[in-house]
Amino acid sequence: MSNKVPVGVLGATGAVGQKFVTLLENHPWFELTELAASDRSAGKSYEQAAAWRQYKPIPQPLKDKLVKPCEPTLDCRVVFSGLDSSVAGEIEESFARAGYIVLSNSKNHRMDDDVPLLVPEVNPEHLALIEVQRERRGWSGAIVTNPNCSVIGLVMALAPIHRAFGVKRVIVATMQALSGAGYPGPSAIDMLGNVIPFIGGAEEEKVETEPLKIMGALDGDQIRFADCRISAHTNRVFVEDGHMACVSVELERKASPDDVARVLAGFTSLPQELKLPFAPGRPVIVTGERDRPQPRLDRDAGDGMSAVVGRIRECPVFDIRFVVLSHNTIRGAAGAAILNAELMKAQGYF
Amino acid sequence: MSNKVPVGVLGATGAVGQKFVTLLENHPWFELTELAASDRSAGKSYEQAAAWRQYKPIPQPLKDKLVKPCEPTLDCRVVFSGLDSSVAGEIEESFARAGYIVLSNSKNHRMDDDVPLLVPEVNPEHLALIEVQRERRGWSGAIVTNPNCSVIGLVMALAPIHRAFGVKRVIVATMQALSGAGYPGPSAIDMLGNVIPFIGGAEEEKVETEPLKIMGALDGDQIRFADCRISAHTNRVFVEDGHMACVSVELERKASPDDVARVLAGFTSLPQELKLPFAPGRPVIVTGERDRPQPRLDRDAGDGMSAVVGRIRECPVFDIRFVVLSHNTIRGAAGAAILNAELMKAQGYF
Amino acid sequence: MSNKVPVGVLGATGAVGQKFVTLLENHPWFELTELAASDRSAGKSYEQAAAWRQYKPIPQPLKDKLVKPCEPTLDCRVVFSGLDSSVAGEIEESFARAGYIVLSNSKNHRMDDDVPLLVPEVNPEHLALIEVQRERRGWSGAIVTNPNCSVIGLVMALAPIHRAFGVKRVIVATMQALSGAGYPGPSAIDMLGNVIPFIGGAEEEKVETEPLKIMGALDGDQIRFADCRISAHTNRVFVEDGHMACVSVELERKASPDDVARVLAGFTSLPQELKLPFAPGRPVIVTGERDRPQPRLDRDAGDGMSAVVGRIRECPVFDIRFVVLSHNTIRGAAGAAILNAELMKAQGYF
Amino acid sequence: MSNKVPVGVLGATGAVGQKFVTLLENHPWFELTELAASDRSAGKSYEQAAAWRQYKPIPQPLKDKLVKPCEPTLDCRVVFSGLDSSVAGEIEESFARAGYIVLSNSKNHRMDDDVPLLVPEVNPEHLALIEVQRERRGWSGAIVTNPNCSVIGLVMALAPIHRAFGVKRVIVATMQALSGAGYPGPSAIDMLGNVIPFIGGAEEEKVETEPLKIMGALDGDQIRFADCRISAHTNRVFVEDGHMACVSVELERKASPDDVARVLAGFTSLPQELKLPFAPGRPVIVTGERDRPQPRLDRDAGDGMSAVVGRIRECPVFDIRFVVLSHNTIRGAAGAAILNAELMKAQGYF
Repeated sequence: MSNKVPVGVLGATGAVGQKFVTLLENHPWFELTELAASDRSAGKSYEQAAAWRQYKPIPQPLKDKLVKPCEPTLDCRVVFSGLDSSVAGEIEESFARAGYIVLSNSKNHRMDDDVPLLVPEVNPEHLALIEVQRERRGWSGAIVTNPNCSVIGLVMALAPIHRAFGVKRVIVATMQALSGAGYPGPSAIDMLGNVIPFIGGAEEEKVETEPLKIMGALDGDQIRFADCRISAHTNRVFVEDGHMACVSVELERKASPDDVARVLAGFTSLPQELKLPFAPGRPVIVTGERDRPQPRLDRDAGDGMSAVVGRIRECPVFDIRFVVLSHNTIRGAAGAAILNAELMKAQGYF
Repeated sequence: MSNKVPVGVLGATGAVGQKFVTLLENHPWFELTELAASDRSAGKSYEQAAAWRQYKPIPQPLKDKLVKPCEPTLDCRVVFSGLDSSVAGEIEESFARAGYIVLSNSKNHRMDDDVPLLVPEVNPEHLALIEVQRERRGWSGAIVTNPNCSVIGLVMALAPIHRAFGVKRVIVATMQALSGAGYPGPSAIDMLGNVIPFIGGAEEEKVETEPLKIMGALDGDQIRFADCRISAHTNRVFVEDGHMACVSVELERKASPDDVARVLAGFTSLPQELKLPFAPGRPVIVTGERDRPQPRLDRDAGDGMSAVVGRIRECPVFDIRFVVLSHNTIRGAAGAAILNAELMKAQGYF
Repeated sequence: MSNKVPVGVLGATGAVGQKFVTLLENHPWFELTELAASDRSAGKSYEQAAAWRQYKPIPQPLKDKLVKPCEPTLDCRVVFSGLDSSVAGEIEESFARAGYIVLSNSKNHRMDDDVPLLVPEVNPEHLALIEVQRERRGWSGAIVTNPNCSVIGLVMALAPIHRAFGVKRVIVATMQALSGAGYPGPSAIDMLGNVIPFIGGAEEEKVETEPLKIMGALDGDQIRFADCRISAHTNRVFVEDGHMACVSVELERKASPDDVARVLAGFTSLPQELKLPFAPGRPVIVTGERDRPQPRLDRDAGDGMSAVVGRIRECPVFDIRFVVLSHNTIRGAAGAAILNAELMKAQGYF
Repeated sequence: MSNKVPVGVLGATGAVGQKFVTLLENHPWFELTELAASDRSAGKSYEQAAAWRQYKPIPQPLKDKLVKPCEPTLDCRVVFSGLDSSVAGEIEESFARAGYIVLSNSKNHRMDDDVPLLVPEVNPEHLALIEVQRERRGWSGAIVTNPNCSVIGLVMALAPIHRAFGVKRVIVATMQALSGAGYPGPSAIDMLGNVIPFIGGAEEEKVETEPLKIMGALDGDQIRFADCRISAHTNRVFVEDGHMACVSVELERKASPDDVARVLAGFTSLPQELKLPFAPGRPVIVTGERDRPQPRLDRDAGDGMSAVVGRIRECPVFDIRFVVLSHNTIRGAAGAAILNAELMKAQGYF
């Protein structure tokens, strides 16, 4: 019998859910034993219910597994939620109330005062909010969230810079992959030879606020948001995976491009120390090639868990500018939630 | 016999040259009578020499026309130059010295003190530099340039804002079309599902400097550059034509998005007054749709001579932000030079 | 007051309907006066009801026109139907019964014994079926159909060859554009760097049967199908407009590639004689360039009404092979129906 | 010290050469010890000489290895040739003459009477030609070739069908990936929303002739070509990797689609028996999904060494038709040559 922690996936048939299933195959600590989805899918085998769209096939033991409804009667204590935000709010709460640890990729609770918006390399100490959450809400479980897929690369680059030099103002323009829109996402005819300079669901607002919470300081039972301002332009481009961002940063303390490159390349943190299975060796990889990062060539760096930063140079308006790329469905979604769970496990939360 | 002004094209077989040929067909004022290109092409018929790549066929009367070498013995007084910058400098000078009016799309002389970098709606008065140029260089002709293809949309949007509210600082990220790189340009396999966050030939420097000259004030025999600063991130995307830019602007005087929209939509200038043939009815078209402009849908606005501005909204870091699109091979290259020539003709330069 | 024939469009808000609206603007014989669509759209202005997706704007006089329901009370006698096949069958019949001439782009009645499947250059005499149709069904109006978008290019190339040399067997592989699937059509993420070797809605069966009816002979009150066999492989590729087909043909009588090229290039027919407004000067354009036709470069030949044939060469298995391209939303849909209407008008059907 | 066979790569810096380097990393039988390339590269480190374009980095031990000239003084007995056909002919001969076993991906010697054109699952017995080759040419080494990248999938599907039911005539239309053209290959602007119905280098002739040799019978000291005829249409599509073909086949003996599916799915051969490291478990994978294979989803089947066949159905003109996909740079190039070498090693040729 396996010593692994049994875990479940909520919304297992969707795009994020399928990514969870793929990434959790052969995980050294977790064993995926429960698949839950909407009533439409519940009662079917996973193979029947999921319109499978990953490059790797459905893990053999899960093919015939029965999909259950998203009710807190799953036989596991930890669940990963890839639920759509239209339903995630209530379902995730019902699980947390019933004692489950919910690792959520949905936006619903990210900005709640008492919910950690966690990037293990950046703000592991925010897990302390769980106590606040449990006390306030009377829950035995907990909800822990990861950031939006367009935020993660930006914040992984900004956080070490913020710590070293202080970030005051940021203007960022993103070029985001199709997979960030879920499946089926944008129509081919809309994207052919085109760029769409708008992403629905308040994408720009997320880019402008989530980093402030993530880079914020834990102060008693609350997070003091980082005192910086961000302006985001978000664009959809014809790329499969990998969100890229062009970033200009105003700093508190002057720093040269070399200073910044050194800080980013040397950045390492708790997940690396703890050797968490999904922790990349280097959270931020700095490239010196003049035309990198590029989505197709660099998104899989660190098995999709590293952010790649290139073109670090002086900004004639602010202080520093660079390009950052991260894999939106791995580090920006399912992989992020798994790393969050690993940190919690390592710290004894379950 | 035609009353039209006979004109020639230098570099007539290249990508920009072919665009000149296409756009000059049936021009009401100009008649294209001379085609000049490199020694490799000279002596061939135009049809043989040009690997024609436009959607419209070669104008019938030009098919069999003999391509001449790029020497100032062409039988016309006005020439449009689509020459590559590796040779444009000297050839254009030799023509100007010999008395030709040279409308140049090349970068070589754009930033020369005594050469107009002309956008007829923005700085028609800069044509006065021609006198300086002729005096200093002892030329009977002149060189007049148009801006880089990545600059034109930006400056057409910034200039009216600058006049109305004062532009202090600008951070811009571009997403530029393949055709901006000439033919053959980037490889398909490099661009498949990809974005390249770098454009060679000092593209970012051009975006950061050319607008300052264009928006500058004529002061005696020189241009006082506009006192603002620009930071540019330039990217190559998988788009046929149409350069798009996400722009954040810090203003001297506060203005609401509505104020800015009003100024841009109402912007009209000398080319419109003079009813120059290539002058678009509205130099800047403001769209209120939340996901526009888009390259494929909007690049042909005003027959490719208008800039389209959308998503005008407050910038949480600066004051105003928006998206601007312009057609890089029409308003950003051949069409720009033609409009420049039209202004010069209307003002009696030839 | 206009002398033009007032016409209406059924399904005016859909993709094909919008193409009708665009192509009928400024038509010399027809004036679009009635727009009809589903109950969801009826009662709204056309601008409100149509999610307009054409490159040209909605014709000014139609913007505020009220969309009517698809009921045979429209104030015109001729209607173009761009209805979805799920509803086209009954609605088109109700119009024909009520005395309207229905030019249908839908598949529902194409293969009916008494309904012309018309390509004016190929089988204008099939219009005689209208008498049969009226007699059998007791209608005062009529339904006349045009072929499927994947059929038209093929049949325009095959028909002259069939007449000259006899076509026995054909194997064809198509590469079809996104717009053939309507809007939104395939998802961008499915099409990125991909080809889908299947098109739903029995596309291959249409390619295998419609040409036999079109090339068939009118024999009293029925069509004797052409005695040839076709095998079709249909594929969806990442192309905006323009269906391409690779065709191998077995002939009754031997013919060289030059013979075939001569027959195709010289092909002209009744619409050209009658100078119908939408009739292209040459129904089939033969190109000798080794890598043409190409969808992006050649689809607009003859304003999208010509088929372009290239690479005519011997087939080592059958006799002749070639590549044919045609514009799927013009000659393959709305333009085809308009040309059909023009022929009917010229022949006094209304 | 390693017991592995030391091998070299000729043309190691090119696209195929880089693929060899990537695929040979950690090969259980072979150790890549020699890298050779043109004089331009010779003398540099491999990292300097190769403009590396693979997704995996250069294998660590090869980064600093000195690139040697392509002369038969390499310290190994087996060489893989990814040389361009413009130079491959003579260089490969010089190596074979000097005693090297040359596994060639170039076209130069493929159709030579005494050179095996090898697909280990199909014609392993053709290796007997090596004796003929050595005797005729007085060589101590040998040249063994693999087929063109557009041929391999076709012949892997046809060969088992031929054996079971006899293949008489074949009409095939391919849709081939960009990588088949080498780097940089087609220009992005040519491929945007486009298909090019022509591939240079006599691609269609290769598809029409190579399979006949591969499926031919060894008869004494020569190959009797298979007695069937093939007609090929080849097209370039906007796909990264994976050549797809739509195939119609006339059979000697009638067979249903199920019969054909059974034969293909059950096909297994010597490489599978010998458990050669690069031999896929199933050379041909049959899919029943109606819209598969697709290049992006299926090219990596069997680690890129399997052909995937789908849509097996009756052909109304011939007997059977289907779609086949194979990975053009793995099974269609470097992987093929490696499997050839494995077969030779297993059979004691070195």
